[in-house]
This record gives sequence, C-alpha cells and structure tokens, in this order.
Amino acid sequence: MDNKEKVNDKKVKMRRPPAKKQITDKRRHTENKNTRTARTVKAVERTPVLKRVKRKIPPVRIIFLGGVGEIGKNMTAIECGDDIIIIDAGAIFPTEETPGFDLIVPDITYLVENKSKVRGVILTHGHEDHIGGVPYLLKELKIPVAGTKLTLALVDNKLREHRINDAKLITIAPGHTIQMGCFKIHPINVNHSIAGSLAFKIQTPQGVIFHSGDFKIDLTPVAGEPIDLKTISETGTAGVLLYLGESTNIERAGFTMSETVVGSTLDRLFSDNAERRLIVATFASNVHRLQQIIDLAVKYKRKVALSGRSMLNVVEAAEKIGEIHIPDGVVIDMSKTKNLKDSELVVVSTGSQGEPMSALTRMANGDNQQVTVGKNDTVIISASPIPGNEKLVYRVINNLYRRGADVVYESLEKIHVSGHACQEEHKIMHTLLKPKYFIPVHGEYRHLKKHMLLAEQLGMPESRVFIPEIGNCIEVTSNGIKRVENVQAGSRLIDGEGIEDEKASMVIEDRRQLSEEGLFIVSVAVSGGEVVGEPAINSRGFVFDFHRDYNKEIREVIDRAISSYDLSRGTIDEFKRIIKRSLRNYLMKKTKQSPMIVPVVVEL
Amino acid sequence: MDNKEKVNDKKVKMRRPPAKKQITDKRRHTENKNTRTARTVKAVERTPVLKRVKRKIPPVRIIFLGGVGEIGKNMTAIECGDDIIIIDAGAIFPTEETPGFDLIVPDITYLVENKSKVRGVILTHGHEDHIGGVPYLLKELKIPVAGTKLTLALVDNKLREHRINDAKLITIAPGHTIQMGCFKIHPINVNHSIAGSLAFKIQTPQGVIFHSGDFKIDLTPVAGEPIDLKTISETGTAGVLLYLGESTNIERAGFTMSETVVGSTLDRLFSDNAERRLIVATFASNVHRLQQIIDLAVKYKRKVALSGRSMLNVVEAAEKIGEIHIPDGVVIDMSKTKNLKDSELVVVSTGSQGEPMSALTRMANGDNQQVTVGKNDTVIISASPIPGNEKLVYRVINNLYRRGADVVYESLEKIHVSGHACQEEHKIMHTLLKPKYFIPVHGEYRHLKKHMLLAEQLGMPESRVFIPEIGNCIEVTSNGIKRVENVQAGSRLIDGEGIEDEKASMVIEDRRQLSEEGLFIVSVAVSGGEVVGEPAINSRGFVFDFHRDYNKEIREVIDRAISSYDLSRGTIDEFKRIIKRSLRNYLMKKTKQSPMIVPVVVEL
Repeated sequence: MDNKEKVNDKKVKMRRPPAKKQITDKRRHTENKNTRTARTVKAVERTPVLKRVKRKIPPVRIIFLGGVGEIGKNMTAIECGDDIIIIDAGAIFPTEETPGFDLIVPDITYLVENKSKVRGVILTHGHEDHIGGVPYLLKELKIPVAGTKLTLALVDNKLREHRINDAKLITIAPGHTIQMGCFKIHPINVNHSIAGSLAFKIQTPQGVIFHSGDFKIDLTPVAGEPIDLKTISETGTAGVLLYLGESTNIERAGFTMSETVVGSTLDRLFSDNAERRLIVATFASNVHRLQQIIDLAVKYKRKVALSGRSMLNVVEAAEKIGEIHIPDGVVIDMSKTKNLKDSELVVVSTGSQGEPMSALTRMANGDNQQVTVGKNDTVIISASPIPGNEKLVYRVINNLYRRGADVVYESLEKIHVSGHACQEEHKIMHTLLKPKYFIPVHGEYRHLKKHMLLAEQLGMPESRVFIPEIGNCIEVTSNGIKRVENVQAGSRLIDGEGIEDEKASMVIEDRRQLSEEGLFIVSVAVSGGEVVGEPAINSRGFVFDFHRDYNKEIREVIDRAISSYDLSRGTIDEFKRIIKRSLRNYLMKKTKQSPMIVPVVVEL
Repeated sequence: MDNKEKVNDKKVKMRRPPAKKQITDKRRHTENKNTRTARTVKAVERTPVLKRVKRKIPPVRIIFLGGVGEIGKNMTAIECGDDIIIIDAGAIFPTEETPGFDLIVPDITYLVENKSKVRGVILTHGHEDHIGGVPYLLKELKIPVAGTKLTLALVDNKLREHRINDAKLITIAPGHTIQMGCFKIHPINVNHSIAGSLAFKIQTPQGVIFHSGDFKIDLTPVAGEPIDLKTISETGTAGVLLYLGESTNIERAGFTMSETVVGSTLDRLFSDNAERRLIVATFASNVHRLQQIIDLAVKYKRKVALSGRSMLNVVEAAEKIGEIHIPDGVVIDMSKTKNLKDSELVVVSTGSQGEPMSALTRMANGDNQQVTVGKNDTVIISASPIPGNEKLVYRVINNLYRRGADVVYESLEKIHVSGHACQEEHKIMHTLLKPKYFIPVHGEYRHLKKHMLLAEQLGMPESRVFIPEIGNCIEVTSNGIKRVENVQAGSRLIDGEGIEDEKASMVIEDRRQLSEEGLFIVSVAVSGGEVVGEPAINSRGFVFDFHRDYNKEIREVIDRAISSYDLSRGTIDEFKRIIKRSLRNYLMKKTKQSPMIVPVVVEL
C-alpha cells in the first residue's frame, strides 16, 4: 500500500456514509459502536473472505514498549502497514534493584529494526516518565517529535544536554490535527499536574484509537482549560475502536480534588506564617502550582527566590512560552535575598522527593550554600512521595525538624493533589468514550487489573479487554483484538557517560551479589605451569574478614586447592574454577555467606 | 546504697503522708503533680542544700539505646544508683543501606560495661522490634527476662534457636508488681496488634515513670481486656514524674478503629466468596486476628490450614498458653487439604509484608510446593505494608493477579487496623496521666516532634519535654530534667553466623560502593623489586567493561603507572596507591564513574 492510497483511504474514511465496498469493515465498526448487536455477526458473514483479501486493510498493531506492568518509562507504538507512530518515550529512575545506574529507558530494538517505518513520536506531556527517553530515541531514529509548547520546551532542554541539535520539533495544540503516515492525530486537552497535557484521538485505517495520556478531571483548574469533555464525548459518539487508558490512581475511590484546593491551603499557610520565612518544595514541572505560589507571594508582598537547577530551567522555559506569568521584580536571584526580612521572602525549591542532591535535601543536611534553615523557617512540602521515595522524603523532614524548622507535609495538610484520575473520573471517561475494546495502560499489573474490573463494572465484556505486559503486541481490526507474537522489549540501563548494554542484567546481578555478600579476590602468579610465590588474598565488604582466626584456614583451603591441581596438564580456567569452588564451599560452611569470589591468575 | 536500704526506701515511699525528712523530695513531687504552683519553688527553698547532700537520693537516668529517631529496635534503660533495668530489647530488619545483613540490634556496650548493675529486662510485648534483640542481650548479660505469657513464649522460640537454655524467664501479668533492684514495676494492660501487651508504671526513688509500650485504645477488643484506663487514670492522679510515650501513629488524626471492624469485613468476604478457596495473609503474631479467622472458619464450615513456619510456631505457642482457642479438628495439616473442595478451606499464611522467602510470596511466584494459586482463589492481605515494604507487597499482589486470583488488600477494603494510637487516643493518655515531664519515644524525629507538639497543645510547657536521640542520657529528679553526657550506643549488625563488628560501617560502605559503581581488580606479580609478567585486569559489575576499545587504553594506563614507579626504592603500598590513582583518574575522566579499584600485588 503506497502513500497515496493511504491518504485516499483516510479521505474516504472521513466521509459518511461510506460509499465504497472496500471500507465495509470500517463502516461496520462505526455503526457497531453504539449498538453491539447481532448485526455485527451478520456484517462479517456478508463480507466474503475473498473480496476482503483483494483490498485488505492491514490490522493495526499496538506494541507495548514500556509503562505497562510498571509505573514509568511509558512508550507505546502503533503500527499499520508501513507506518509506525510512537506515543511517549519515557524514562524511569533506578531502584535498589538496579543500583548505581542513572536512568532506565525502554529497549527500542523493535523500532530500530523497523526504522524506515517510524513516522514520529507524539508526546502526551512533559513529565520524565513520558519524555525522559526522547534523547536516547533520537540518537537511534531521526524522527519528528510532536508535543505542546511546554512539553517541547522541556524536551529541548534535554536535547541540548545531549548535544542533539538537529531534532525536528513539531508544536501541537488541542484542536489542530497532524498527519503521521496513515495516522491522523487529534490532540485533546486534559488536566494533569503539568500544563500542556494531552490525550490523543488517533484515526487509523481500522478505526479510532483513543489514548488518555495522564489525566484527571479538573473543572476548576487554576490556569489553562478544563479537560475537553465535549470533544471526548463526541469522539465516543462517533465511535472508538480501542481505548488505551491510564491507570495510576485506579485503586482510589472518588474524585481527585481540584488544584484550587492546594491554593486555599497555601493561602492559609502564607497568612498564618506572616513573620516567618517560607520555603516551598514542589515539582518544578507543576507550573500551575508555581503560578499559585507566585500569585500568593504578590498578594502577601514577598519576593520569590528559586532554588535548584531544574526549578530555574523550568520557570525560564515556562515563562518564555507564556505558561507562567511573573510580574516584574517578584522573582529575584538567591544571591539578592540577604537583605530581605524572613517575612519578605518565599524560597521555591526542588527536592520534594527527597532526592539526595536536591536543593531541599542539602538545606536539611545543612550543606546548602545559599539557604540555611533555622527556627524561623516554615518548610512546605507540596508533593506526596512517589512510592519508593518515602524513606528519602521522611529523612529530609526529620532533618528539617532537627534544624528547628516547622514542616508542613501531606500527612498533615491538604498541601498536594494528585494529577491522576480516581475511580469516578475513570467511570466518566469510559462512559463518554464507550470504546469497543479497552486496554489499560500506565500501571503495575494490579492497577491494570483493577482498571479492567472497573470497565467490566460499566458493561464492558471481559473478552474485549486485554491486560498488556512489556513486549506484547496486539492486533486490532474492527472485527476483533488478538495477541500476536511478542517483540523484543525491556529495559536499557544508562550508566554515567556509558550507554546501556544488553549485558546489563549480568552487571546488575554482579552488583547485587557484591552489595549483599561482599567479595574475595585470590591472586595467584603462574609461571611455566607452576604456581610461584604465595597467593594474595583480599576481601572487601565481607564481615568475616575481621575474625583473624579464619585467615589461616582460608590460606590453607586455597593452598590445598592449588596443590590438588596439576596445572602443567590442565587449563588456567579449570584451575580458577577449582580455587573458586574450594573457597566458596569453605565460606558457605563456616559463615553461611556466599561472597563473590574472583580468582585471578597472573601469568609470568 | 546497699540493697537493704533500697528496700526500706521504697517501703517508706509507699506510706502516705511521708514521715521522714529525707523523703521531702519525693513528697514535693507528689504534691506538685496536680498543682504545679509557686509552692514547688518554696519547697525547694525550704530544703537546705546541705541536708539534702547528707542523704541524697540519686537521680534517675533514662538512657536511650534504640527506637528513638527511628522505628524499630526499641530499647530504653532506666538507671538509679546501682540499679539498671531495661525496657524492651528489639531488633530491626536491614534496609538498602545495610544490604546483606540479617538483623540489626542495639549496641549494648553501655550495659555490658555496667554489667553488675543490670537487674533485668522487662518486655512490653512480643513484636520483633521489642524482643528481637533478647538473644543477643542474653549472650552478654545473664539477667532475668520479664514479660507476659505470650511474649515469653515467643522469646522462648528465639532462645531455642540460639541454643540459650539457661535464661531466667519471669511471667508477669497486669495487676501483679515485680521488684527489680530499686524499681517496682506495675504491668498495665493495653491494646495492641498482639495479645499480652503492657504499659509499665515504674516506681523509682525519684517518682513514677510511666512507659506506654505500644498501645491503642480498643474498648471493644475481640479477645482479652480493653486497655486499663482506670489504673492509668489513678496513676495520673497519684502523680507521674515522667511519661515515655510511643509515637508511631502520631501523624494520624482521629482514633484507630477497633479490631472488631476487621471481623466484619472478613465476615462479609467469607460470605461473598462462599464457593472459592480463601487465602488470608496476616502477621503471625496478631493472634486475635487469627482467632477471628478461625471463628469465621467454624461459622462458614471451613477447615483452616496454616502456611509458613512462623505461623505454625506462633499458633502452637499461643494455643499452649490459652491465648488462642481452636475447636477440635478445625486446623488441619496442609498435606491433608488435597481432598477438600475450595469452599471447604481457608489457608492462613505468612508473607503479608511480601517477605521474599515467605509462604505467600512463594505462592505468588508459583514455587510454593503446597499451595498453587489459581482462578478460584481469593487472597486477602490483612495487613498494611510497613513503610519501606511497599514495593515487595505490591510485587506479590501483581503476581497473584497474574495467576488469576482475586486479591483483597488494604487500599481497597477495611481489612486491617493499626495497632497504634492516633492523635485523639494520645490526647486521652496525656490527659489521664498528666505527667510532670514528657519524653516521646518509638518514632523517627518527625514523630517525636509531632508528639511533643501534641503534648504542648494539651498544656505541657516546652521546657518539660525532651526529644531524645540514640545514645542520649537524661537525668530526672523530682526537681527537673536535664541532659547529661551521651553513652556509647548505635547499631550492631548481625550477618549470617558471624556476629556484628564495630568495623561494620566500613563493610557497609564497601558494599555500597561495589553495588553502585562496580569493581576493578589489577593484579601484578612482583619479584625482587621488579614487576614480572603482564598485569591481570578483571572487572565486575562495571558496564564499561563491554566496550572493548577501552581495554587497550586501560592496559596502557596501568603500564604507564607501573613504569613510573621505581619499586626497588619504594614500598608495595605506595606502588598500589599509584596504580589505583591512575586507573581511578582515567575511569572518572572517561566514564564519570568511580568503581572500587583493588590493586593486588603477588610477591614472588
């Protein structure tokens, strides 16, 4: 199918009612949306197989490269014939299971192997788990990147860090469609904890796919427009083949509170702490939250000083594109705050997740050069800990208290609202969209499962829902949904300047063993098939080392192993294995521990 | 002060009104309790310093050895003259900061150094963070251990594991006092998530110290008695010098729900899932929760099979002492469940915290020999994740869902209640006790601080509250409270069969570096001040290794370092340092990583 045909196809598709036989499939889908009766079956029967083969519309394939079975590194590819588009290219921060790595991004082998088909990446919004992988994607694929103004401003910061200067960035906005290959993409405004967030209605040759992005329903947002429920509803009426819906907060009953609630709490805190210095830590990317803080600073006649590199970057980027409005003279440089009274200043800082190198953490530890926290400070942490960050956040809170500051945080106040829909909001989305098929995304398995159960509660049959895992590939036609063979997918670990490697899992396993069990090194010099000199034994990270009595025994174990093997008739590798095995057995027996044992042979 | 005098002292103290001059101090305290007026000051003036010196009552010292500034390994010592008693001897499980260790217990150097003074340890209840350190304490100190029947049954299990056969265990119960040195200890019944939980009223030569233990107020417990508010109130009326109060849930507003709430939820779940097999995971130690499950099994005509070693141990111990009542034939061995229908069985399992080796985790992973989870199972997780365990618990839930089971857990149902008091309960405790001084315990700094603020809200002056950290020593007399010099205190890390070591922190740092940065080993053979042969280079857990191009450069760097140093005139140590420094600088420059570098010299 060449490009011209595809365009024709779409034009035809936009017409209603359909005039040609070859689009029967699509029409059936469209009619079918709101009826779901036996007519569907009949329609299938009425289309002889031979006829369909003649002018077959390729199925649409949904390929899950990240963000399913996990929270983070969201990436979904949609493929039809010779066209692939990518929705989001996220990253995730390492956990204790991948210690020492800087970043994890999706394995994009499948996309690289199908390079010539990839038409572009469309970004729902500017959070790390949606854009953090863009530089790594663009290093492999020269494709256009589409997103809203703020999203692209944040992407641009990243690209500059990676010295990528030739990226093609396409600014999109709700109401303006773009075409990528055979896909026509309609961005739709949604609310989330960052400005410029989108859902996508994607017209494909098989029907409409709706991707929610990350969303909540906030009908009284502090800036920007409320979620475009009208367009969502109309899309549902016209017919949605497949809904890909985010699932982050699916376990929470009710309705996420409006961002305006945070404004009221902050206003009260500004008023109650009139004589104290205020330090507010929040996500740099939540520009509407920042706007509320700036507005309150104006109201309460305080100056705003920004602390933390990403805070400075985001505010600069957001102001440039008009997403944040700062009256002249309100934001001042931290170096100019010396002469202000505590009552005249609010510091807005990064570090709401307790990130070890962030501005707030350094304040709490007393090693922030610019801000020394003390008794006259009220620190407001306007965020909740992302699961896994609790300990870091609480450590910061403990240390701020130790310095005498007052600390206001989420366990105690309505100082943060989520950016994600709760159950009642999801019910609204499903009810308006009425999709034929549903695939929950953006969540661990339990979230996806709960989202499936919610859809079923609203009348969706179980057979029309699929719970994806990374690497799954789903084929959708207007007739049905089926799973086909997996593609290569998973994690790419980014470490320092180095790049990820498929052997990364070996590295991780090594690091785990080293961190949990420690290390023994046995170095032996060998000359002409004979061991010469004494073996050198070193250990690191191993408690046992301090029990001097055992040192002699360990030496004996190694000596015995060495003399048991006739190196002149054997191999160095086998010799190493014997040393390793003897020492491992001894240590396991005596200490019930299994450190990594590295036998080293220096050949002379 | 010899033993006889001490006993006399106490007898006098029990009389009222006091008849002798030398106890003026104590009387003043008692009078003072409920008045706190200028009379206090006068009383001090009326007692000339010289007279008091003649027959001085030693101050009481409170020594914080664990459980303050942290959640876990609770241990507090109370010292007066030649007597020391210990309240609790807890343990804490290792975190990612102490990888590979099995257990952490308090450093008891101070107690070992004052061995002859220690009269015994009194246990508030049988949770790990209160009794987990008992075996390590008894290995150093031959002292009596006092606790309720269930607490001692659980301690006994531990002692048998450690092959400690000569421990003196003293069973105590509410209403029966015991004497340890100059301290008279009154156990008081409280509610908590384990049966046999106590608070302690401790009569000291300076006045009454009240220790809350871990508590909640449950006036409709499912078994046992409600917290003894009457005695607590009377203790307050008679006068409390110092209150040591737990702080775990101090951030939570309101009142912790009664355990009976869980019973109602469980009853509904039994009724809703009549045809399905039920698997309930909960804390083995929560015997009242187990009792509720057993009672429901009887009601719904199911058999109970226990899964997990600690579940079997605790139920056996609890049944033996009458803390749990199991009708004949209700609990059956897991091996006898094969012929039962799903509707006839409830499995009660360990693993509610997602512990990697627990019964439930193995079920979720499909490698539990006895229980294969499938579509007809409803798994009820009747616990909430302890902070830090979230990821483990959620992984288990995800995997149970993947196996097709239905999972009921706390985000979705009222399936667990906390064992700790919330703010309104703490207010009741403070109001009834009306202590002169207050020290919050059992919590991170932020909990202790919040508890202090709650006390102040109830009228306690800030000057009478102290927030302790581990190692702090507080001197209390009826006149005042003051901090004196710290004692040695901290963590002892237990690793495998080995015992903790003061060098443990070095080991931890090594392991951290190994786990985050990986490892390079450079082995060089040296003979007569000359390097012989080629250096052997090995790396582990280092991504960079896979980029073959760099291997040549690394070799060159090391060769250059070797030839730059005249070993015949220098030392092996300096030689090693030079190799290390060269390679470190190279790797940092090229990779921005800093792996551990271990230079090894094999001397021939």
